[in-house]
Amino acid sequence: MSIQAPKLVFFLPQTGIYSEDWTTLDIGMDRNYLAGTETEYELTTREEVLNWYKPRDRFSHKGNYGHALIVGGSYGKVGAVILSSRACLATGSGLVTSYVPKCGYIPLQTALAEAMVLTDSHNDIITDISVNFEPTVVGIGIGMGIEKETRIGFEKFLDTYKGPLVIDADGLNILSKERSLLDKLPAQTVLTPHPGELKRLIGSWASDFEKLEKAIEFSGKYDLVLVMKDSYTIVVYDGKGYINSTGNPGMATGGSGDVLTGMITALLAQGYEALIAARMAVYLHGRAGDLASQEYGYESLTAGTITDYIAAAFLDLFEKPERDSRENNNKEES
Amino acid sequence: MSIQAPKLVFFLPQTGIYSEDWTTLDIGMDRNYLAGTETEYELTTREEVLNWYKPRDRFSHKGNYGHALIVGGSYGKVGAVILSSRACLATGSGLVTSYVPKCGYIPLQTALAEAMVLTDSHNDIITDISVNFEPTVVGIGIGMGIEKETRIGFEKFLDTYKGPLVIDADGLNILSKERSLLDKLPAQTVLTPHPGELKRLIGSWASDFEKLEKAIEFSGKYDLVLVMKDSYTIVVYDGKGYINSTGNPGMATGGSGDVLTGMITALLAQGYEALIAARMAVYLHGRAGDLASQEYGYESLTAGTITDYIAAAFLDLFEKPERDSRENNNKEES
Amino acid sequence: MSIQAPKLVFFLPQTGIYSEDWTTLDIGMDRNYLAGTETEYELTTREEVLNWYKPRDRFSHKGNYGHALIVGGSYGKVGAVILSSRACLATGSGLVTSYVPKCGYIPLQTALAEAMVLTDSHNDIITDISVNFEPTVVGIGIGMGIEKETRIGFEKFLDTYKGPLVIDADGLNILSKERSLLDKLPAQTVLTPHPGELKRLIGSWASDFEKLEKAIEFSGKYDLVLVMKDSYTIVVYDGKGYINSTGNPGMATGGSGDVLTGMITALLAQGYEALIAARMAVYLHGRAGDLASQEYGYESLTAGTITDYIAAAFLDLFEKPERDSRENNNKEES
Amino acid sequence: MSIQAPKLVFFLPQTGIYSEDWTTLDIGMDRNYLAGTETEYELTTREEVLNWYKPRDRFSHKGNYGHALIVGGSYGKVGAVILSSRACLATGSGLVTSYVPKCGYIPLQTALAEAMVLTDSHNDIITDISVNFEPTVVGIGIGMGIEKETRIGFEKFLDTYKGPLVIDADGLNILSKERSLLDKLPAQTVLTPHPGELKRLIGSWASDFEKLEKAIEFSGKYDLVLVMKDSYTIVVYDGKGYINSTGNPGMATGGSGDVLTGMITALLAQGYEALIAARMAVYLHGRAGDLASQEYGYESLTAGTITDYIAAAFLDLFEKPERDSRENNNKEES
Repeated sequence: MSIQAPKLVFFLPQTGIYSEDWTTLDIGMDRNYLAGTETEYELTTREEVLNWYKPRDRFSHKGNYGHALIVGGSYGKVGAVILSSRACLATGSGLVTSYVPKCGYIPLQTALAEAMVLTDSHNDIITDISVNFEPTVVGIGIGMGIEKETRIGFEKFLDTYKGPLVIDADGLNILSKERSLLDKLPAQTVLTPHPGELKRLIGSWASDFEKLEKAIEFSGKYDLVLVMKDSYTIVVYDGKGYINSTGNPGMATGGSGDVLTGMITALLAQGYEALIAARMAVYLHGRAGDLASQEYGYESLTAGTITDYIAAAFLDLFEKPERDSRENNNKEES
Repeated sequence: MSIQAPKLVFFLPQTGIYSEDWTTLDIGMDRNYLAGTETEYELTTREEVLNWYKPRDRFSHKGNYGHALIVGGSYGKVGAVILSSRACLATGSGLVTSYVPKCGYIPLQTALAEAMVLTDSHNDIITDISVNFEPTVVGIGIGMGIEKETRIGFEKFLDTYKGPLVIDADGLNILSKERSLLDKLPAQTVLTPHPGELKRLIGSWASDFEKLEKAIEFSGKYDLVLVMKDSYTIVVYDGKGYINSTGNPGMATGGSGDVLTGMITALLAQGYEALIAARMAVYLHGRAGDLASQEYGYESLTAGTITDYIAAAFLDLFEKPERDSRENNNKEES
Repeated sequence: MSIQAPKLVFFLPQTGIYSEDWTTLDIGMDRNYLAGTETEYELTTREEVLNWYKPRDRFSHKGNYGHALIVGGSYGKVGAVILSSRACLATGSGLVTSYVPKCGYIPLQTALAEAMVLTDSHNDIITDISVNFEPTVVGIGIGMGIEKETRIGFEKFLDTYKGPLVIDADGLNILSKERSLLDKLPAQTVLTPHPGELKRLIGSWASDFEKLEKAIEFSGKYDLVLVMKDSYTIVVYDGKGYINSTGNPGMATGGSGDVLTGMITALLAQGYEALIAARMAVYLHGRAGDLASQEYGYESLTAGTITDYIAAAFLDLFEKPERDSRENNNKEES
Repeated sequence: MSIQAPKLVFFLPQTGIYSEDWTTLDIGMDRNYLAGTETEYELTTREEVLNWYKPRDRFSHKGNYGHALIVGGSYGKVGAVILSSRACLATGSGLVTSYVPKCGYIPLQTALAEAMVLTDSHNDIITDISVNFEPTVVGIGIGMGIEKETRIGFEKFLDTYKGPLVIDADGLNILSKERSLLDKLPAQTVLTPHPGELKRLIGSWASDFEKLEKAIEFSGKYDLVLVMKDSYTIVVYDGKGYINSTGNPGMATGGSGDVLTGMITALLAQGYEALIAARMAVYLHGRAGDLASQEYGYESLTAGTITDYIAAAFLDLFEKPERDSRENNNKEES
């Protein structure tokens, strides 16, 4: 049992399943102590996120919040781009343009009036990502497929684009297949693999600890922010792991990852640094899911509902954060 | 009048119409007594469903909740697949892929971003169900039509697919026409006929009791879970009938059955056994309709609204279930 | 001023504008007195509608509530059919099929999963209304246009269809142009003209009283239920006028009439007689608008929002109807 | 610091950023004093808007509230027209017709059942604005692009249309390029430039005060109502500037301007004068955003959500406006 602070083992799949839910063990841990201790692993909690949050200036414009480009989709997998673009708008990107194959045109324009749409010359897949504006940030890979023409288009894109970048899903699968592309990634590119995609990227592991070590090494080698999506998502950068404290098993539902990709992209569009954008989006994504689960339970939670609750996750940052610590203090005193 | 426990006759259309609403007669029946008595018919109530419910492990993934394939639709009847796929997602399937004729592509991709879509080579009907992944479970038949090419495609599908299976609507109508297909159904396939479809499957009946007998025989012969949709839906399997306790006449609305099909499919995707998946889905479907009717009445209840209330039906399982029994006990004591 | 009961003049546009809002004058009128008096004009209020309302039998099926066919739409005016079909579903029709030109296929299937769709052979207009089932009732004319081919198709339809029928909008405009079609209308067909359409049907009038006289004569000549849509809609049948008591100027918005058409059609589908279906739908439509206006005001009220509130209008029928009369009685006593 | 009344400098970007939020300084300013003082700049607050508001007559019809035509869209930018048309309906226009290139047909008809749609002969852009009815008002330019054929079509439109007119976005960009068109604008045409579009229209400025001077001159020269969209939007007409008091930085999101265009168009459709329509729409738009931000925060606010809150902004006009002044009075007394 752990009374002082949550132990890393609680957050790792292999060891976590033998522990009770760590939150029930939180009987007054001193968060200041935790924050003050220099460890290889840190938690991402409301305190950190609230601290990073940049208030909006009354005299700011749409241009201050960036123009994100979401690239993805293929025949039958256009919904991923709708979800990701919606989440990107709901996380504060000033403008969002969605880049899809032609088969995505009508669904995008109909389901998401706030986004602009650019289409590939191909009907079913993406073959060439050419846009008529300078995006602030690009989120790429969701529902994209790994067809040869798509891989070629992706490589050409990496040859020219050097701004903030988030790569997910089939974008990661292409990187795993064509490893020379890893050298072309801009510094601090954010990768968001789930366990299967991670394995293809860094190879298999014997234990969660070995997985973390390999991830840290991989992140360091290519200067990447690695978001290892899992029950407790861990963001790896600069030799450290940042464990997320939010989320629930109801979020294990199709499209949940697409929403996260849109959220990270939106925070980059608003000028957050890559590591902070990743940790903050992972936290808010999990918090949105937690708040949604109070109304929807676990089974009925869908990716669209998580997106609906992004607003609540932002507002929740500002709701009586003091009271919680006070309650903890009271418990310590008693 | 029945004081100890609801009598079977209350739930059968022919005799039920002569009884008052049985719930008004529930003046303290001992549910433990009912549960302990071995009868040919059992009720499905909150107690049973709560007992079957499998809590989600904190360290679970999307893969733990399966990948359901919903097959159906034809020109003008694509909405059935939207409703069924939405319900499948809202009942907890990890992933959902919808298989439709080409005419369903835009509606599905636009109206349901969380589902993936595969399309038949034919524009108007399904002719050949070939998919590029291993579905955990298949729900088939809604809005599908019974064209010759569809029947051929359906037969080819039954020749190869041997996993968990739910068959509804035109899938049942094809089975009625081509009875040799019944021998090809995997064990514990779930069939969900409404009274008209049931008649085509098992022949006509002189009384509700004869209907039940014939249903039990049919279910036994082919090892099928038979969901006889009605005012009080009865699930038949292994020589027994399981009477559902939820639902209302507002649910007599187009698409209500498509929603149920999606729900059963979702529970199978999550690893529930066929009989339990059927009884639990029927209960939750009716409960969703009951909760929805409190806000929408009977006339305004639509299949989409029932789907919106699946979350409430799940949460309702956990809401003070103790208090109800205590109230019953109090009444018994007084 | 009128204390005993609202006077007819309050409800007529020409005289009504000189009166204060009559509802402010309702200081204890005895509704039983009003109901007992045989006048040429009667009010439609909650009391009447509640009296007509047919509760749903617990052992009823989808088939008990009919299968409505909504026919209409033309290039750019497909939304009318979406609204009308949605309202038809939300007013309790068991099944709804929408018949539209081909250009309406995708919008209908995407926006309204609960309805089935049949399409004309023509892309832009309706030319031939041939369906593959026996509709319980047909609602026709909304957004349909009056092209020659549409008029021919409409006439052919009237030659063969002899069941319950509601005609609105361009269906009425065709009747005005081709008056011989009036003889082909089934008995008790419901027509729903707004003032402009009414003028084309019965000719112009010098006063509201002349309008009523002409309407009564026209209704009698062809055995039609005439719904004269206006601020206070008056239903005319069998020599009498039935003045509606609900509705507000926020309902003067595009598509409001399409919603009413769907509602009347739905009540006919459920077996209500034509006059009662018309009066009840007009009442519920206005009540839905009144309840909606409490949340949306007048300017922001849209036809879709009226549809959203049909459920509330039904439930409102059953909400403490006694208390209102008691309050009136108390006022009389004091 | 300013105690008597908010100073102009608080509302100008260049000077405003050095002030604290002026609303925190509102410690009892006498609004009557402000209203009584003849200044070159006036505030638009709830008092003015409430005063302008025209209550709806119980005996009014759809025709009393006009038929607005919203013209815009191009391949990938059809969402702008959906947002603008929705906002136009939600601000009370009796009827709305959307004019889009063919690529906008399905999205418009699917996403907005209440609007009618007319399409250009061209698939991707607008080339010729020919309509089959007399619009009460036209709102034009959103998402329209500035292709040569579009510019020609726009000029032809200006040659013939002489009614109330709102020009936004690419409509303004065309005016900037083809300045001879400025002479063709009907009197009191409303232009709604954001800062970049304004610069292209009136040239650059050295200070906010110079910007205002130039705007006043430009407005006077062509008899235009100039809506200078900004953190505090200023409406310029007849030598005066009217500063809006509502809005927040969460409204810096794609499509927010399209919503405003639809709102101004709707008020013109209902017979409000151009200057009042502009000031009132700007106020209500900002108020809708303020009310929405209480539920959605700043980051998650989208243009669609602003539209959802137009109803609340109208209703808010009538909610206890007295109490606020009384609170101010109390503060002054103490």
